[in-house]
Amino acid sequence: MNNQNIIIFALPGNEILAIDMAKKYQVQIGEFTIRSFPDGETYVRIHSDVTDKKVVMVCSLDRPDAKLLPLFFLSHTAIELGAKCTCLIAPYLAYMRQDKQFHPGEGITSRYFASLISGFAETITTVDPHLHRFSSLSEIYSVPATVVRAANHISDWIKNNISDPVLIGPDSESEQWVCEVAANANAPFIVLEKIRRGDKDVDVSVPMVEKYKHQNPVLVDDIISTARTMIETVGHLKRAGMKPPFCIGIHAVFAGNAYLDLLKAGAAKVITCNSISHESNEIDISDLFFSVFNSDSETTGKMEE
Amino acid sequence: MNNQNIIIFALPGNEILAIDMAKKYQVQIGEFTIRSFPDGETYVRIHSDVTDKKVVMVCSLDRPDAKLLPLFFLSHTAIELGAKCTCLIAPYLAYMRQDKQFHPGEGITSRYFASLISGFAETITTVDPHLHRFSSLSEIYSVPATVVRAANHISDWIKNNISDPVLIGPDSESEQWVCEVAANANAPFIVLEKIRRGDKDVDVSVPMVEKYKHQNPVLVDDIISTARTMIETVGHLKRAGMKPPFCIGIHAVFAGNAYLDLLKAGAAKVITCNSISHESNEIDISDLFFSVFNSDSETTGKMEE
Repeated sequence: MNNQNIIIFALPGNEILAIDMAKKYQVQIGEFTIRSFPDGETYVRIHSDVTDKKVVMVCSLDRPDAKLLPLFFLSHTAIELGAKCTCLIAPYLAYMRQDKQFHPGEGITSRYFASLISGFAETITTVDPHLHRFSSLSEIYSVPATVVRAANHISDWIKNNISDPVLIGPDSESEQWVCEVAANANAPFIVLEKIRRGDKDVDVSVPMVEKYKHQNPVLVDDIISTARTMIETVGHLKRAGMKPPFCIGIHAVFAGNAYLDLLKAGAAKVITCNSISHESNEIDISDLFFSVFNSDSETTGKMEE
Repeated sequence: MNNQNIIIFALPGNEILAIDMAKKYQVQIGEFTIRSFPDGETYVRIHSDVTDKKVVMVCSLDRPDAKLLPLFFLSHTAIELGAKCTCLIAPYLAYMRQDKQFHPGEGITSRYFASLISGFAETITTVDPHLHRFSSLSEIYSVPATVVRAANHISDWIKNNISDPVLIGPDSESEQWVCEVAANANAPFIVLEKIRRGDKDVDVSVPMVEKYKHQNPVLVDDIISTARTMIETVGHLKRAGMKPPFCIGIHAVFAGNAYLDLLKAGAAKVITCNSISHESNEIDISDLFFSVFNSDSETTGKMEE
């Protein structure tokens, strides 16, 4: 790789991941200042030379509203100073859940947010976005959008850190995803079953509980936000007589006290990828962004992968 | 006016002003919900029928960063629901001060912010923006931008509420503006003078202090943000033996404890226009927006003014 012409900008909160990337891809870390004036407006100044460079902005978009304008300003400032382009790595991508009108009059914020990002970033790269009704980011992003996946890293982490694991899918929706992680971790998996006894009387059972009672249960989900599903699942396993589970999430959003609540509910440990900086980060995904640092055929003389 | 086809949306914090406008211009107030999900994302839902209507969004843009995305989403939602257009009344307009590169590498946020607003609002209307190096909003806003002025309302308020006023300009830069307000208030004015005794020894004198010692001094400025200039000027007047001054600002930004600090510094009273909702609001500017509610020649059958 010839990465002389790429420079990484770590937006506040993304410093550790960006420094890991800089080492891995042999790219310079750019210096800039973003601060607030007393009146709440944002000040941006870039100290590094960005002339003719591809600027890679690393900015996880959890709690997105206050982050958007500083990111937008940084991108425009770089272009004004002669950068060739600005590309966004958003390890966690926001506004993926409001992807249709659930009720009349609702805004489809997934779409509006995508149009705003597509207006200033030349490409966007993210880790496992919450794609539900859209099958691909290209349905809403008008710029090239690359999705990288953390599943293999999670499988590897389980293989290396948990003895006798059994993966748990909280419901049938999660089956495909849990199945894949389990297969790569050489671990068995079970999916919890809902037993409906009446309109409001739904119980959850753990199939083959006797077989797995002495193994270490592992819950895996893409986003841990309120942690409600995980907390409920921890309860189901406890009542079924299983051991306290390991709870793994890709994205450590943790709204409010969710992290503490999940620990208090009886998780053996909570583990996340470093897509959002958090003390539970143990799975490093910084090596997933190779394409961002190798796709610049103009400067490397290679074709895009 | 036939204002059946206009609807006002008051963004949070702008309710009082928007209701005043709705009464004055006989326009319906629209109903909508903006709230935050636990993960910090914004939810938008419009309850009123906006089909074929001109949607006027009232949103003062002090502390702008967290307000931008909700406003952007509301505008897109209205358009998606069939609104004819969305127009922005931002009684206070943000990002007017970083209007050039004061140091190498700085972003000219005035320009970037204007491009973002121009991307979703069909017109923008504001009260006395802080135009310094740009002579008009049209230099940075690509959509029609209308400026309305509060000077006459301030003059009227002074005439009606302060006996024997004398207007004070804190420095020569303010002379033109203070002169105009004074003239319409039928009041005299004086501009403070800097007396330079050495490189760092600058004193400020109050000309003709004996003549105005028994009158009520009135300070007027466009934005009261940190209130530093006003607090200093209050000090100069006190040391010169004048009465405690009335401090009038158009825009009640009041960063941090600025309001309290200004009162503690010895202001007789602090008075502002209601462009930003604040307890010091006494000067109503809701009647300045006639053009927004009368410019719709298609629906009114009249020509634009």
